[in-house]
Formats: sequence, C-alpha cells, structure tokens
Amino acid sequence: MIGRDLLGIEDLERADIERILDTAEHMVEIGEREVKKVPTLRGRTIVNLFFEASTRTRASFEIAGKRLSADVVNFSPSSSSMKKAESILDTARTLDAMEPDAVVVRHAVAGVPKRIADVLGAPVINAGDGAHEHPTQALLDCFTVRREKGRIDGLTVAIVGDILHSRVARSDIYAFSKLGAEVRVAAPPPMIPVGIEALGVKSYTSLREALDGADVVMALRIQSERLTGAYFPSTREYSATFGIDRAKLRFAKDDAIVMHPGPVNRGVELSHDLADHRPSVILDQVRNGVALRMAVLYLFAGRPGGTRRARVNVAAAEVAS
Amino acid sequence: MIGRDLLGIEDLERADIERILDTAEHMVEIGEREVKKVPTLRGRTIVNLFFEASTRTRASFEIAGKRLSADVVNFSPSSSSMKKAESILDTARTLDAMEPDAVVVRHAVAGVPKRIADVLGAPVINAGDGAHEHPTQALLDCFTVRREKGRIDGLTVAIVGDILHSRVARSDIYAFSKLGAEVRVAAPPPMIPVGIEALGVKSYTSLREALDGADVVMALRIQSERLTGAYFPSTREYSATFGIDRAKLRFAKDDAIVMHPGPVNRGVELSHDLADHRPSVILDQVRNGVALRMAVLYLFAGRPGGTRRARVNVAAAEVAS
Amino acid sequence: MIGRDLLGIEDLERADIERILDTAEHMVEIGEREVKKVPTLRGRTIVNLFFEASTRTRASFEIAGKRLSADVVNFSPSSSSMKKAESILDTARTLDAMEPDAVVVRHAVAGVPKRIADVLGAPVINAGDGAHEHPTQALLDCFTVRREKGRIDGLTVAIVGDILHSRVARSDIYAFSKLGAEVRVAAPPPMIPVGIEALGVKSYTSLREALDGADVVMALRIQSERLTGAYFPSTREYSATFGIDRAKLRFAKDDAIVMHPGPVNRGVELSHDLADHRPSVILDQVRNGVALRMAVLYLFAGRPGGTRRARVNVAAAEVAS
Repeated sequence: MIGRDLLGIEDLERADIERILDTAEHMVEIGEREVKKVPTLRGRTIVNLFFEASTRTRASFEIAGKRLSADVVNFSPSSSSMKKAESILDTARTLDAMEPDAVVVRHAVAGVPKRIADVLGAPVINAGDGAHEHPTQALLDCFTVRREKGRIDGLTVAIVGDILHSRVARSDIYAFSKLGAEVRVAAPPPMIPVGIEALGVKSYTSLREALDGADVVMALRIQSERLTGAYFPSTREYSATFGIDRAKLRFAKDDAIVMHPGPVNRGVELSHDLADHRPSVILDQVRNGVALRMAVLYLFAGRPGGTRRARVNVAAAEVAS
Repeated sequence: MIGRDLLGIEDLERADIERILDTAEHMVEIGEREVKKVPTLRGRTIVNLFFEASTRTRASFEIAGKRLSADVVNFSPSSSSMKKAESILDTARTLDAMEPDAVVVRHAVAGVPKRIADVLGAPVINAGDGAHEHPTQALLDCFTVRREKGRIDGLTVAIVGDILHSRVARSDIYAFSKLGAEVRVAAPPPMIPVGIEALGVKSYTSLREALDGADVVMALRIQSERLTGAYFPSTREYSATFGIDRAKLRFAKDDAIVMHPGPVNRGVELSHDLADHRPSVILDQVRNGVALRMAVLYLFAGRPGGTRRARVNVAAAEVAS
Repeated sequence: MIGRDLLGIEDLERADIERILDTAEHMVEIGEREVKKVPTLRGRTIVNLFFEASTRTRASFEIAGKRLSADVVNFSPSSSSMKKAESILDTARTLDAMEPDAVVVRHAVAGVPKRIADVLGAPVINAGDGAHEHPTQALLDCFTVRREKGRIDGLTVAIVGDILHSRVARSDIYAFSKLGAEVRVAAPPPMIPVGIEALGVKSYTSLREALDGADVVMALRIQSERLTGAYFPSTREYSATFGIDRAKLRFAKDDAIVMHPGPVNRGVELSHDLADHRPSVILDQVRNGVALRMAVLYLFAGRPGGTRRARVNVAAAEVAS
C-alpha cells in the first residue's frame, strides 16, 4: 500500500506507481466533462508551501485541488526569511497545526520535504527539492508515455542533458525503471554523475548511440547561465552536440516521442520546431499533470477518516496525561 | 455575436457592448441578494495572469469570478523573469494546457494579450495592456453612465488629462462613441496624440470649451513623477488649468457627473472635495466594475459546451495523425 | 452587543469576549468532523488586506473563512507603495466598494485599522496594528487557557518579555483582566512601559516573583536584532534572566502552562525543550486560532441581512438626492 507521504519515486513500489497512474485515468475523464469538478475533497484543505518560486507546478497543484473541491491555501515564504532550518520547520509546523489534509512542499534544498514530513501530522507531497526528486513530474511523464504508447514495460527511454543537477532526471530514472523501461542517459561527461549506473541506467556520451532504438527522448532544461564554461564550452556547442532537432531525432525509432519538463530553451535543448510540434508532447505533459496531481491529492489527501497521522494524537495524549 | 476574446473595444460592435451592459444589470441584482453567489460558472477555471501589478483590477476580476462560483487562480509572474516574449508566451501556453475556461491578462506592453490570444485555446480577456486598451474599464464606465443617466446616446463626454499615455482614454473613446455619445478630449497639447480626431473625437486645449454642455466629465490619472517637466511645467500648474474642482465643473451641465478610473491624485486631477463627494461617482464605478466583470466572465468564459477553441482540437488531431 | 468592528480588546465588554469564546467552542466541533466545512458564510466575501507580511495570521484567517464557505480574497500591497495614509485609505475604500462582508487589516502602524474602519462600509477586523493591539491573538490565548484550565476567572497570568513593543501583550492584558484573571508583566525595566499599572497589571523586574503562583506563563518574542544593546546587554543575558526553561518554570504553579504567540526564538525566550513539549501549548494556540477566527468571522461577517453599515446607504441617499 502507498505510504503516508510522497517524498520520492525511490520509495515507491511498481504497484504504487501503477495505482497512481490508473487513478489519473479516471481524473482525465473528469476534465472532459462540462462541469470539471467533483466533490471528492470537499472540506479538505491542501496547503501549497512553496519556498522556491514556481508558476507551473503551483498552478497545477492548485487547479488539481480545486477540481476536487478542496480548499487550497498558497504560501510562498520569501526565501530570504527562510534560510534557517529552524524557521522552515517552524513555519511548516505552524501551518500543520491548522490541520490541513496535505502539505505540498517545494524547496531549493534537497531533503527539506523529508525533514518537514518527519514533524508534521499532515501528509507531505514533494513538489521538487533541490537536485533530489520531483516525483509528480516523473509520474506525469510516465502517465504521458503510457497514454501515448499504451505501455511502459519494454520501452527505451533516453534522457538527454544535465543529469547531474536534475531532480527530474533522478525521479524519471526511478519511475521508468520500476515500470520496466530501459533508461539511458546522455550528456557531456561532467553532467553525468559518477556511479549513475548503480541506478540501473546505461550512460552515453554519444547522443547517436543513446537514441538508437529509443521510444522516448526526454530533453532536460539547461541552466545555461550557470553551466556554460564549467560544464560545456558554449550553449552553441551544447546545442550542436546534444540539442534535439529533427535530424538527430532520426537516430531514435520512427515513432519516438519527445518530452521536456519545461520551460524549454528553444534552440538549445530542443529546436524551435520540435518545441512546438509533434512528435514532442510537452503541452500534453502539462495537461496530464493536472490529472496526475488530482490522483495524487485524492490518494494522499483523501483517505476516508482523515489523513493526519498518529503523531498528532500522541500530542493529544500528552495533553491528557 | 461576441467574439472569442475581449482584447479591446475597438473590435466590438455596438450590439456587443449593449449585450454586455444588459447582462451586467442582471449581475447587479445578484449582488443585492443575501447570498451574493450563483452557480453559473461552477467547475470553470479563470486564470488571472497579471504581469503588471494591480490590486484593484485583479480584485475585481477575482471577486466577480467567485460570485459566479468559478475557481479563480492568480498568477503574478515577476516582470523581471518575464522580459522576453518567449517567456511570456511559454508561461501563457503552459497555463493554457491546464485547460482554463478564460485567461485574464494584464501587461505593461501594448499588444501582449493579442499575442497570447493567438496561441491559446482559452479565451483571453484584456485587463489592460500598455497604452493600448483597457476594455473592461471602459465598459464599466459606460455601465455607470447608463445607470446614472438612463442612456448614453446623445450625451456629451469630456475626457480630461493625459490622453496620450492612457489606455483608459482609448477604450473609453471607442466605447462611448460606439454607443452614440459625443466624445471630447481636453489636455495640454503634448498630451493629446496627433491625429486623435480620426477616432471621431473633438480635441480641446481649453477646459472651459471642452466642458461646455458636458454630461460626463472623466478625469484621468496624471503620472506626475513621470510627466512633470516633459509634458507640463508643474503639478500645480496642471491642476490650476486642468484639475477639476467645483468652480470649473460649472462649465459643464448642471447635472454633470464626474468620473475617474482611480487611484485619484487628490488636489491634482480632482479637488479633494470632488474626489469624495457627488457629483463624482468614483466608488460607483468600482462597485459596478464587479457586476460588469461578472457579465464579461459569464459571456466569455461561460459558453455552454465549453470555451476552448478549435486550435486545441487541431493539436489533438495532430496527435491522432 | 458586539460592535460592528473588532479593532481591539480594549473596546470589548466581558460578555462580548465570552460570547466569542463560546462560539469558538462550536467551531472546534466543526473542525473535528470528517467534512470540516459548513455553508454558514456561503456567498459572503472576506478580504484579507495585509499591508504587513504574515504567513501564520493570514493563513489562519484564510482557512477559517474557507471552512465557513466564505470567498476569501487576499491582498498584500507592497508597503513601499503604501507609505501615505491617502494611498492606504484609497486602497481600502476601493476594495470596500466591491462590497465585501468584512475586511481583515494588518498594518505596521498603530491605528490604521481604526482609520480604515472610519471610512468603510464593511466591518473591519484588526489582525495586528503596530504596537497597539492584536485582538484575535488575545482571544485565542484566552480560548486556549479556558480549554486547558476550564476557566480564566481567578487565574494568575504572567506575561514575560518585551511588553513595551508588544501588541500581543497589550491585547492579552485587556482580555485576561476583563475575564477576571490577575495579570502580571515581567521584563527588564526598559521593556516595561511607564504607567503600565494603570491597565490593572502588576509589574515585576524579578522573574521569580512574577511567576510565583502563576497558572499561565506567556513568553513574548524578542526582536533581538532590534533590541540588543538598547534594551539589554546581550541575547545570552536576556535568556539567562528572563528566558523560560524547566528550572525557572518551577517558580510557577506545578500545573502551569507555557504559551508563546510564535515564532519562538528557541534558546532565547524559551528553552528548546519547552518550545516543543508540554507544558507548553504553542501549537494548541495555533490550532485554536482557526476555530477562534471562525467564530470572529461568523459574528462579525455573518450578520443576517448583511454586515455593511449605513454609511453606504448614506452614499446611496446622496445619489438619489
């Protein structure tokens, strides 16, 4: 059975992932109705606690929660006032005392959602933490592939770009591997973490070899300001070698699809043409993201009888003693 | 019939404007009930995408949407991260993929709502773009005049102030003219755009002449920090010549009303006394603005069968091919 | 009967306070249901107008309003654009013209909520103004003590810390005194306002004497950056003399509870141990705060027939004349 928190794909069983994806299929149906809203989470409160700014992920969780009739409350504490772990945990604990049914946490430092989960009564859903994990992104990626290809088992998924700094890459590696895909990573050598093969992936420095026979090509965002010089000579050179365009896409299978977590640097990771047209499915990823997050909120914040864990009752017992 | 988007008054027919104002009358009734809420837009999602900060306009759209039971989701991307057209369009397209029923856009650059509308599936409502248009402001101005005077046809409307930089002036000129009013503009010469007469208005540099026989005196906000020196010698001099007080108001009809889009620089465009008391109707404009925006959301985001345009289905067809 | 606005505890009668606390008991019950939501304020609009940033107080009002099915609209005007009283009042008046049923105001300057209340049609609820009052904090403190101790009458409450700059201290002094408690304050002399005894409290510079026989020990937050040097030699020295730990807590009654309005400077006002464990009840204060604010919104924003005052009708009458 699925645990209390959704902190990373690493913790999930294959059956958990499949249950989330199956639930998301039902949520897609709701989105196709004239009234795209169901009373499932009426009276439940979802807190979006985003220490790191994010328009698209916050929007996706907010819209997902509202389509399930939850009350969604947004907080974006300024990161300047939230440098100390003590302030972060204090803020989280205070919001938790208002008895939300789930807290969605995003933070620039890896591990913060876990530390928060350790002290909260409410389930914690990780919406991205440093270079650690971004589990709902990986789940919506899998969901999109399954809807496109009908299956994941036996497919070949090539992830191209800055694997080293990417929480999306880590979560995708876990998710696609657990669902039976072969996962490959391709990047200039300094962008591939040493020992990545331990995660069960094959590592390539030749894009051609990585794409050979691939069903899915996942391009990652390049933080060019931060990386140029240290990791590759220039954006132009990166683009020439690892940027995906229609010519290079021919290395992959004829019916390969192209994915990207967004926002795309057009002309860097993806050609302008591919950023906007099939076989890229970038906006489908976004669209599926709402259904997928509805499924996650339903499963993690909608438990009958309430979601808040015993820890809170311990505190109550303490009061009574 | 009204089009998909509300980008400016310039695009509307007289019958469109009248239909919006008539619908707003019904919305006023809802606001007078004990429970000021109807289920009309239940399950519909309105995105407020405000690249330019605005307390009052965003508030008005948010309250309007909620009174119709829509889910309202606010985004205010920092303008610093949104300098490039690519980032703006990418943000809009990403939010659009979450399938909202309308996107309300405000941006400091003229034409941005149009560019966004060109690529979105959802209808776009312009909430102010640079010095171009601010259609819902003009509609609420017309609505307020019609409620005060019982009609617009045949009235004389004098707009006083910085016509050159004012999107409100442009939208008001279109709206009142289309509804049959005579529109005049009055300002120091550098604040009157060359060729303004082509819009069908009469241009004055004498306030006395402009106000002679006017039923409505609309004062515009002066950005004194930005304009002093370049456009007029001093705020004091502007106020002495073009600021409206009870003495100058005598140039207009005895029953003339005074309007202002807010916020007022008291003692500059309007005397302190007129800013707060009849015959100024500034707070009525704000109050009517909620009903007017309810009408706009109902008409543009409430179409039976959904509001999203074929473009999205084209994408779906592309997927299927 | 309770007045239109909730500006401070100073204005309330004992019966008013008791009515609010009794109502909050009912709200606690709602929070214990599977669906923690009632339709009481359906169709009512609550505006949170926070000129001063606050995660926890804004969250508490927002969640409280949503549990009562109100529409909650948040505004946090940048303080930089809101330095002039004119801008503040103009913003408030504009929002008021959109006909909310209550406006919750927080501002760094004492007296702003009162000035706003003087010009609004909607009831104003003070969510903290400068060093003046923070009435809902004091009410939730009383509510927490009553739930812990079964009564307030006859108890001894010791408030420890920066009394001079604390709106919480002022509101708590009024509230606990009106409900029949003996209130004491304890701090280094420069932190005790001259003439505080006029409020009916006893003033101590010895923590031991202040705590002797106390049922409730309320520690206040120390703004150490601002105060060190001017008010006490060092944080360490403050902590040694006035910081509450288990050793010093022995001066109070055996069953004394410890309170703090949060956020706690751990190791300064309270020991790390006491910040997190009984007999401190800090998270209970937060939890009770939601129920208490539900009671306040119900009583001040839920009047049958509407909450907006005659002033608005005067304006309407003016229109008609």
